[in-house]
Amino acid sequence: MPLQLQPESSIPLYAQIRDQMRALVYAGELRPGDRIPASRELADQLRIHRTTVATAYAELESEGLIEGFVGRGTYISRRNQPREFTPAPRVQGGPLRWEALFADERAGDGLSRLMPQVSDDTIAFISAKPSEGCFPIDDVRKCANEVLKREGREILQLGATDGYEPLRQVLLPMLAAEGIGAKESNLLITDGCQQSLDLLAKAFLRPGDAVIVENPTYPGALSILSGARVRCLPVAVQTSRVKQAYGGLDIAGVEAALEQNRVKLIVVTPDFQNPTGTTLRGEDRQKLLDVAARFQVPIVEDHIYARLRLRGIAEPSLKALDRHGIVIQIDSFSKMAFPGLRVGWCIGPPRVIERLRQLKQISDLHTDQLSQATLAEFAKTGLLEKHLKRMIKLYARRLEVMEKSLERHLPAGTEWTRPDGGMSIWITLPPGLDAAELLIHAREQGVLFVPGRYFFVENPQPNTLRLGFAGVEEKDITRGIVTLGNVIDSEMRKKQRGTRRDTEDSAARTSRVPLI
Amino acid sequence: MPLQLQPESSIPLYAQIRDQMRALVYAGELRPGDRIPASRELADQLRIHRTTVATAYAELESEGLIEGFVGRGTYISRRNQPREFTPAPRVQGGPLRWEALFADERAGDGLSRLMPQVSDDTIAFISAKPSEGCFPIDDVRKCANEVLKREGREILQLGATDGYEPLRQVLLPMLAAEGIGAKESNLLITDGCQQSLDLLAKAFLRPGDAVIVENPTYPGALSILSGARVRCLPVAVQTSRVKQAYGGLDIAGVEAALEQNRVKLIVVTPDFQNPTGTTLRGEDRQKLLDVAARFQVPIVEDHIYARLRLRGIAEPSLKALDRHGIVIQIDSFSKMAFPGLRVGWCIGPPRVIERLRQLKQISDLHTDQLSQATLAEFAKTGLLEKHLKRMIKLYARRLEVMEKSLERHLPAGTEWTRPDGGMSIWITLPPGLDAAELLIHAREQGVLFVPGRYFFVENPQPNTLRLGFAGVEEKDITRGIVTLGNVIDSEMRKKQRGTRRDTEDSAARTSRVPLI
Repeated sequence: MPLQLQPESSIPLYAQIRDQMRALVYAGELRPGDRIPASRELADQLRIHRTTVATAYAELESEGLIEGFVGRGTYISRRNQPREFTPAPRVQGGPLRWEALFADERAGDGLSRLMPQVSDDTIAFISAKPSEGCFPIDDVRKCANEVLKREGREILQLGATDGYEPLRQVLLPMLAAEGIGAKESNLLITDGCQQSLDLLAKAFLRPGDAVIVENPTYPGALSILSGARVRCLPVAVQTSRVKQAYGGLDIAGVEAALEQNRVKLIVVTPDFQNPTGTTLRGEDRQKLLDVAARFQVPIVEDHIYARLRLRGIAEPSLKALDRHGIVIQIDSFSKMAFPGLRVGWCIGPPRVIERLRQLKQISDLHTDQLSQATLAEFAKTGLLEKHLKRMIKLYARRLEVMEKSLERHLPAGTEWTRPDGGMSIWITLPPGLDAAELLIHAREQGVLFVPGRYFFVENPQPNTLRLGFAGVEEKDITRGIVTLGNVIDSEMRKKQRGTRRDTEDSAARTSRVPLI
Repeated sequence: MPLQLQPESSIPLYAQIRDQMRALVYAGELRPGDRIPASRELADQLRIHRTTVATAYAELESEGLIEGFVGRGTYISRRNQPREFTPAPRVQGGPLRWEALFADERAGDGLSRLMPQVSDDTIAFISAKPSEGCFPIDDVRKCANEVLKREGREILQLGATDGYEPLRQVLLPMLAAEGIGAKESNLLITDGCQQSLDLLAKAFLRPGDAVIVENPTYPGALSILSGARVRCLPVAVQTSRVKQAYGGLDIAGVEAALEQNRVKLIVVTPDFQNPTGTTLRGEDRQKLLDVAARFQVPIVEDHIYARLRLRGIAEPSLKALDRHGIVIQIDSFSKMAFPGLRVGWCIGPPRVIERLRQLKQISDLHTDQLSQATLAEFAKTGLLEKHLKRMIKLYARRLEVMEKSLERHLPAGTEWTRPDGGMSIWITLPPGLDAAELLIHAREQGVLFVPGRYFFVENPQPNTLRLGFAGVEEKDITRGIVTLGNVIDSEMRKKQRGTRRDTEDSAARTSRVPLI
């Protein structure tokens, strides 16, 4: 591979590899079907870390320029060969690997695939998953036992697409207590929020339709929307006024988008938004409902983190405030209990729920009943509430430790959001730093996080990153943030040195085809 | 409602209601948005059975002419108003209710919705579900207990989209023993065959693509394909040479369809096909593989019933015979174990499996892990094999009783298939009889079955019906078939009387707009 890297450049090595390989393709030096070296091989040849090459390859794959096949190697892609560089095509059948893995807590297998060599003492701020060390396994076991003994025949037999009746009878009063007067016809049990959103996309959206999404947002939502080939209209999530709990979707931005487009759906996470951790204040919730009602556009409210309020006073959900019947709330047991049991639900007007039920029946008939029954029992006997209280206490301590560590160990110029709940904090590095490059060095020191860019619909901010705190023990949080602070510090110094030396280089580079 | 029924006509009452209401719509007497009477109300008015009206309404709903809303009543549809009568539009968003419910064992909630008043002593040959009275609930409970105790953290935590590793490690050797040398990269765990087929449709099919399907076939497959807006090319399932175990897809018909169309996929159930119970003979399997390979069209093999062989010698599966790498086999625990645990799998070439994995991740992240782990334990400890043996013995006895009863109690001129396994038998009534009309009378006598027409892609044969035998106890089988025989007999006599008297009437009726 005729690549020439400039280690002293301010452009990260992975970006140099990416840009030069892209240029080789456009110049015709690499042709569709050509095999390229394995990342390990190329890393050896260039004497750099394998992760650097892997990062470059992942970006090229997400652009559709290269494709990897298990056991067969990596090739210049034969399909969707872009004539010139365009953003990663988010089409059904297009490359999803990079957004779907690693960046995303709901993707699960991502980490192990991208980083099979992560060792046990790595401190991973990667995920927004609950802490498995605290799962009350004996309680779950007793619940599973009890329901199988009592209702085994019903559980093991084919069930209703609407959901397992005892679970429905647990959820309706729970929702009523939260100010949502839902009836039978308002409720559909699903396999979780991912499926709820997928069904909603199928029910509401056709290719080319416009959808308002938060920018940045949960990448699993973007995968669904790109699969449905809809137009995502990104509205900024306010994280600039950092060090306060509120923020969230910019309502003026929503209004502007509604005025300029025929919007079909608004997708929003009002509480402890993933990835920013921000919460929409009460007055903004009301404004959002009013403007959506004015334009007659339904709102999908992702309520998955809302019950993980770690301090302060809860705002009523959009669904609880909904006087126009335009809110569809999606929720699940994943964050407050166990993501391995795939059970969620969806609250909406009867006509919408009936349509989703039909689509769910086509997709997978019904949700697994052993888990539905076990979770119903877990909730009915008060064990869920007990567990949730315990987890909230634990996560609150972790959040506190995290904030203290950030305050103490991150260099000046670094900022972060102040979530009152949920599972993650959003970091903004000083301008000019690239979180993807930072990750390469942090990883060498045994610390992992997710670069912010993978959460953006457009205008990715390379200097942002997400830290998940819920799954990391207190002592590791401090240790991890100390390391992170050091790495940021060292990158900032490198940058300052590099900026002076590299000004000419960069100017030259933007004006011509990259060196090959 | 200005309807005039002719009870003495050879045209069933439900068909008279359906046709007259349709005529009212086309004549402009009923307009989009008009409310029509509830089925109970209209039945009272016309002094007929409510089910007769419900049957007519279900047909009109499946045509898209009327729509029902829970709690709000039934209305003349505002959308998709056909200018003239066309077959039920099978589009995404279109009416699925009728095909999806009742006709279909995988739909579950269908029966209870359409027939809430079915009493306990009704003999329901409706479903192709396993017999829940024989579920080894204690064994399942012990397995769930054991895996939660041993692997609770892993099970409850977010998992891999590929599937739960211990289950994968159980399935691969099981497949090897069946002649399928699948590796890790050939296997994807899903929520069951319905999801596997849905993912395959998403991966392979675009609107307008052509797919070869069996006619008649499993309605859940048709729902998926119509949702994907593909063109179904029906190829006949050979049931005419009745009273023999073999039959199945007509291979010459497949070849003709391949010659005349650019086909994207062939969907076939070689063993104990639903609804006919027929099995593809060995030489036809080879021919099918050869012709598909010649045209380079992948085959989806639905293997869900294959392990329920009740007598005779098993044919190797298409996947086991596959030398060209063109077969994708879908399978599940639903029929051999418990449909309430939603776990199935899919075997195919690595590129296909990787694509399905990406689509599965978008759809619902991964399959429920408590059920995956419990079923893995159930299989690993030999309990699955033991259970399956027991069920095969039971179903074999039921099949035998069923066949003896059919032989003894059905009137001459009625024919049926001779399945060597699976869960259902296909009945062909003497020409001129309508199974939907028969059902109304059978139901009054406490016997239920599924009219054959709901399994057809085109050319529905009104004189066919499906009898599921696996879920009915032996004594009820005999009693049910005696009743069915009597009802058929009485309908045949009515028909003979009616034909003579009604010849003029019918001739008149086809020549003009129905009476209103």
